[in-house]
Amino acid sequence: MKVRVFVSLKEGVLDPQGKAVEHALHSLGFEGASDVRISRVVDLHVKAENAEAARKKGEEMARALLANEVIEDFYVEVIV
Amino acid sequence: MKVRVFVSLKEGVLDPQGKAVEHALHSLGFEGASDVRISRVVDLHVKAENAEAARKKGEEMARALLANEVIEDFYVEVIV
Repeated sequence: MKVRVFVSLKEGVLDPQGKAVEHALHSLGFEGASDVRISRVVDLHVKAENAEAARKKGEEMARALLANEVIEDFYVEVIV
Repeated sequence: MKVRVFVSLKEGVLDPQGKAVEHALHSLGFEGASDVRISRVVDLHVKAENAEAARKKGEEMARALLANEVIEDFYVEVIV
């Protein structure tokens, strides 16, 4: 079953990568760009009986490895 | 206007970061995880008259900086 884990920085946490991209966009002439935040998406397949089990697996993996819950939020989608 | 640019590796392009995550998941006991692919999402605000103009801006930024079209695909969503 296909699972997507979406990991983003919590609000208020500084995003230096986003800031760098914002400066680069300004240098390229996109002066109107602001509030750039970069997140990541982990797509994977898991072995699970049903969508609910797959979602649970995704959440366990996010907590164990994919997200740093001190500074990041995540949510899990099951793509059927 | 809020724009989201979703950037993922083209199919067939090797994803070493995804492979590393896959191995780490296996080591942690998630043996069922496979086909791990990591993408990124760039959220930003742009100055635009309407949603269509915002989408166009997002596509220009993706082509100029956010995505490497040789190995990556992207799509742009406008979040109203």
